[in-house]
Amino acid sequence: MKIALAQLNYHIGNFELNVQKIIQAVKEAKTSGADIVVFSELAVCGYPARDFLEFDDFLKKCEKAIADIATYAHDIAIIVGAPTRNPKLEGKDLHNSAYFLVEGKVQQVQHKTLLPTYDIFDEYRYFEPATEWKVIEYKNTRIALVVCEDMWNVGNDNPLYTICPVDEMMSQKPDILINISASPFAYDHAAERLDVMKSNTDRYKVPLFYVNQVGAQTDIIFDGASLVISPNSELYDEMPYFVESVRVYDVADVVRGRNLVDSCQLTVDSSEALNKLSTVNYQLSTKYEQPKNKTALIHAALILGLRDYFQKMNLKTAILGLSGGIDSAVVVALAAEALGAHNVRVVLLPSQFSSDHSINDARALAKNLNVQYDIVPIESMFQGYESALALHFLGTTNNITEENLQARIRGTILMAFSNKFGNILLNTTNKSEMAVGYGTLYGDMCGGLSVLGDVYKTEVYDLAHYINRNGEVIPKNSIEKAPSAELRPNQKDSDSLPDYDILDKLLYQYIERRQGPNELIAMGFDEKLVHRVLRMVNINEFKRKQTAPVLRVSPKAFGEGRRVPIVAKYLA
Amino acid sequence: MKIALAQLNYHIGNFELNVQKIIQAVKEAKTSGADIVVFSELAVCGYPARDFLEFDDFLKKCEKAIADIATYAHDIAIIVGAPTRNPKLEGKDLHNSAYFLVEGKVQQVQHKTLLPTYDIFDEYRYFEPATEWKVIEYKNTRIALVVCEDMWNVGNDNPLYTICPVDEMMSQKPDILINISASPFAYDHAAERLDVMKSNTDRYKVPLFYVNQVGAQTDIIFDGASLVISPNSELYDEMPYFVESVRVYDVADVVRGRNLVDSCQLTVDSSEALNKLSTVNYQLSTKYEQPKNKTALIHAALILGLRDYFQKMNLKTAILGLSGGIDSAVVVALAAEALGAHNVRVVLLPSQFSSDHSINDARALAKNLNVQYDIVPIESMFQGYESALALHFLGTTNNITEENLQARIRGTILMAFSNKFGNILLNTTNKSEMAVGYGTLYGDMCGGLSVLGDVYKTEVYDLAHYINRNGEVIPKNSIEKAPSAELRPNQKDSDSLPDYDILDKLLYQYIERRQGPNELIAMGFDEKLVHRVLRMVNINEFKRKQTAPVLRVSPKAFGEGRRVPIVAKYLA
Repeated sequence: MKIALAQLNYHIGNFELNVQKIIQAVKEAKTSGADIVVFSELAVCGYPARDFLEFDDFLKKCEKAIADIATYAHDIAIIVGAPTRNPKLEGKDLHNSAYFLVEGKVQQVQHKTLLPTYDIFDEYRYFEPATEWKVIEYKNTRIALVVCEDMWNVGNDNPLYTICPVDEMMSQKPDILINISASPFAYDHAAERLDVMKSNTDRYKVPLFYVNQVGAQTDIIFDGASLVISPNSELYDEMPYFVESVRVYDVADVVRGRNLVDSCQLTVDSSEALNKLSTVNYQLSTKYEQPKNKTALIHAALILGLRDYFQKMNLKTAILGLSGGIDSAVVVALAAEALGAHNVRVVLLPSQFSSDHSINDARALAKNLNVQYDIVPIESMFQGYESALALHFLGTTNNITEENLQARIRGTILMAFSNKFGNILLNTTNKSEMAVGYGTLYGDMCGGLSVLGDVYKTEVYDLAHYINRNGEVIPKNSIEKAPSAELRPNQKDSDSLPDYDILDKLLYQYIERRQGPNELIAMGFDEKLVHRVLRMVNINEFKRKQTAPVLRVSPKAFGEGRRVPIVAKYLA
Repeated sequence: MKIALAQLNYHIGNFELNVQKIIQAVKEAKTSGADIVVFSELAVCGYPARDFLEFDDFLKKCEKAIADIATYAHDIAIIVGAPTRNPKLEGKDLHNSAYFLVEGKVQQVQHKTLLPTYDIFDEYRYFEPATEWKVIEYKNTRIALVVCEDMWNVGNDNPLYTICPVDEMMSQKPDILINISASPFAYDHAAERLDVMKSNTDRYKVPLFYVNQVGAQTDIIFDGASLVISPNSELYDEMPYFVESVRVYDVADVVRGRNLVDSCQLTVDSSEALNKLSTVNYQLSTKYEQPKNKTALIHAALILGLRDYFQKMNLKTAILGLSGGIDSAVVVALAAEALGAHNVRVVLLPSQFSSDHSINDARALAKNLNVQYDIVPIESMFQGYESALALHFLGTTNNITEENLQARIRGTILMAFSNKFGNILLNTTNKSEMAVGYGTLYGDMCGGLSVLGDVYKTEVYDLAHYINRNGEVIPKNSIEKAPSAELRPNQKDSDSLPDYDILDKLLYQYIERRQGPNELIAMGFDEKLVHRVLRMVNINEFKRKQTAPVLRVSPKAFGEGRRVPIVAKYLA
C-alpha cells in the first residue's frame, strides 16, 4: 500500500482554489501509484476559518467541495478534512472531521475528539467532540484515522484531556495511523511535534503518517513538516518546512524502517509548487530530518508570512519607512526576499533629530537591496502643525506630544504613498517595544502587517546577523549602534527602557512562561524592574489592541493567542 | 430567611477595590437583617478576567480575596463567585465557582457546568465543567446554587448543552434557587433573560434569586437587572439597570408573591453607590419591572460604558473632533452626560471642503452642551503635505489619498491635544461605517474607545432624537441634512453607499442574523447590492482589527464577539 501525503497551502474561504489544488494533487498521487492521498485538517475551507463556520452558506460550500472532491476518488482513496454538521440536536452544531472518500463516495467520517481551546485555538467555539472511534478498512489495511490534537494526549498523559482517541481504537487493531493536522509554527514546535508523534508510535507500534498544512493564515504560520514514522519510532521522513510538497510512501518500506531499505522506492516530491511535481527516486543519503535552527526557522517563517499575506490578499507591493535602525532594516530585507526587491519601496523620513549616519545607513541598505527609496524630510510638516497648534498649546512645554507628532507625520506620509501607489505599509515594531508600549499609535505603529511583533529586540539582532550570513546586507552600523527613536536630541532607547538583554529575558518569562512578580524576583530579576516592566506591559494593552496582525513565531504571540483585558488593574 | 442581592460594579484585577466593595455590602446586608448576601460570578477578580486566569499569581490573589471575605461571614452567609483550581490532573486547570461562606469558612463550593464558548465568551478556554451538584443546607433551607449559564438550559431545551444542572439537583428538593451571573447587556437581552429565568421557575416551582454584575469591562457592558421571581413565575422584582444596587428580600414574601403581600417588608436599595445605601420600605406601588425601550437602554448603556472606561482607567477628560455631522454630535452629547461637560472638549477641524453650516452646527452643539471648543483649520497642513509629496506624486491624479490625508491630519491634531492635555480621544465611527470600511485608518478611526461602533447609522438617528427628547441639544440641521464626510466638494455618503435604511437592514441580517447571500436575496434584497455589501464587509476586516474597543450593545458587535479571518476570500 502506498500513501501520498499532500502538504498544501490553502486559502480560507477560497473553495475554488482549495478544491482545485486538492484535485490536482489527487491526480498526481494517482499517477504515482498511491492507494491513498491524505490532505490536512479542514483543508477544503482553510484553517482557521473562525466564525465563517457559523454561516450556513459557508457550510454548504464545504459540503459541495467534498462532493466535488469525491468524484475524483476512483482508483484512489482520499482523506481530507472538512467540517460536518452535528446531526444531534444537542451540543455544538459542527464536528471537525476527516472524510474517507472511496469510489466517488463518502465511505466513512471520523470526527475530532480533542478540541484545542487555548492560545490561538477556539475549536470548542464551533465543534462538538467525537464520541465514536472506528477504524477504517481499506484494501485489507485497517487505518486509525484521527485529526490533529487527537494524537496529543498519548495514553492520556496530557492533563488537558480525559480521552485518548487512539487508545479507543486499539482494540480494533489498526495497521497504520494517519493524522491530518493544522499545527501552527512556533520556533520550538517542530521538535515538540516530532517528540509527541514518536511517543504515539512508541505506544502503538504501527507506522504513522502525519500531514500538516503549510502557509500563513494572516498571523498564524503553518510550517508543514509532515511526518512519517516507522513502528520502531524512527523518523522515516520529515517533509520540508514552509513549502508545499507531496510525497508518496510505501507502507511496507516504512514498516521495515529507513535503516533496512536501500532507497525509498517511490517518493514524489514537490518543494515549490504542485505543477512542478516530479517523480524522484528518494535516496537514503538525502537528509530527511529538517534542520531546526531557531533563527533560520524564524527567518523562513517570516518570509512565508509576508509572502502569503500579499499573495492571498492579491497584493503585490510593500512600503515601509527606513530609519537607519535595525528593525526597519530587518523588515525591508525580509520583504525584499519575500516579495522581490522590485516590489518593495522605502521612504526615508528624516527630522531635525535624525543623525547623518541614520540617513546614510538607510540609504546604504536600500542600495544593497536594490529597493526604490525616496527621502521626504518631515521638518516642514512638523512646523506646520506647531504653528497651527501654537495658540492652543500656549504655555505648555515640549513633551511626548512633539515626539509622537513626528511619528504620526511619518505614518501619514507612508500611508499617503500606500494609498497613492497601492503599496501596503509594513509595520516594523518589535516584540519588546510592543510589550512595553514603546511606540506611537497611528505613528510608527501603523501598517497592515506586523512583521517583527513576535520577535524580541535581541532576536531581531540574531535575524540581522542571519540576513548578513553571506555578506553585508544590513549595514554594520545599523546593527552596532545603540538603538534610538531619534525623536529628540541624543535620545537613546536606554534612556527610558532597561537594556534589551535584561528586558527581553524578563518579558519572555512573563509573556511566554506566565511567571508572576514573585517568581520573577525569585529568579533574580531586580524587584523594582519587575514591577516597572510588568506595569508597562499591562497598561499598554490598549495600544496592542489597535495594531496590525502580528506574524506569530513564538509559543505566545501578541494577538489572538494572548487575550487580556484592556481596562483592568492587575500588576498595573 | 432574608436574602440580599448585591449587584455591584467590579474592576478586573483590582482585588483591593473588589474585596472592599464586597465587604462593605456584607456589612450593610447584615445590618439589614439578611441571612445571606449574594454577589455575582467571579466577583472577586472581575469578569471577564481572560488570560489573567492563566497566572498563578492572579489565582493566589483570588484565593486571598476569598479568605479575606470569609472572615466577614459571621451571622451571615456569603455567596460569591471566584475561580477555583481543579484538583484533578485531568481537564482544564480551573473551575468557575460559587463559594458559600459561613462562620468564617468555606462551607461549600459549587462549580459551573455550562461554559459559554461563543460570541464574546471563552469560558472553556479556562474552566473545567462541574460533574457534581449538591444542594446547600443552611438554616433549614436547601439552596440550589448555580452559576449563570447553568440556568440557560432549562430541562435540556438549549441545543448547545447536554446537561441541565438544576435538574440534577431536583432530587435533593431545594427550597430556593440562587444564580450568580455575569450576563452582559444587549438591547434585547434583559427581556430574554427574564423569559429564561421564568422558564426555570415554571419548571422548578421554587423562588429564584438571580444576581448579575453591573458595569462596563472595556467593551462589554453588564446591565445588572438582577431578578427575583416567585414560585408561580411572577416577577417579584427586577433590580435597576446600569447602577449598583443592594436589595434584601424576605423569602416568605417572595414565595407568597407580590400580589399577596402588602409591601416588601425589608428592602434596602442603593441606586447610586454603596455609601448611599439606605433602608426603604419598598412599596407595591413601585414599578418593579424596568422599562425595556431599545433606544433608552442603548443610551444608558453607552453612558455607563463611557463612564466606566474613564473611571476604571483612572482617566478624567475626553476629546473628540466635531464635524457638524450626527455621529460626532451624538458622541459628544453622550460624553458630556457620562463625564460632565467640563471634562469634554472638542476640536472643529474644517478643511476647504467643510460647509459653513457644518461649522455652525458644530459650534452650536458645543455651546448647547457647554463644552470647550477650539477651531483648528487643517488646510495649511494639508498644503504642507501636498508640497512635500508633490515631486513624489508627480503625474498622479487626486484620489482617495487626498481624502484620507485630511482625515489623518485631523487624527494627528486630535492626538496632539490628547497627548498634550491628557484627554482621551473618543472614536465616532458608527457600526454601518465600520461594517463597510467607510472610514480612514489612523484618521477618523483613531480613538481609545469606539462609542458608536455597535450602533448602526439609523440607530444613531434614534439616539439623536432621544438625546433631544427634552429640547434641542443636537442641532436639528445635524440630524436632517444628508450625511457627508466632506472630504471633497459636494461629497455625500450616498455617492458610494446605499441608503442607510436599506444598508442597515442588510447589515443586520448578515452580521446579527448570519444570513448568507442566498437567504438575503430570498428576503428581497437586491442581488447586486447583497454581493457588493457582503464583499465590502469581508474585505474590510483589516480595518476593524485595528480599531478601538467597541462598546457592545447589540447581540453581535464587532470585536471579540465576532472573529473572522483577515486574510480570506469568502464572499469577497
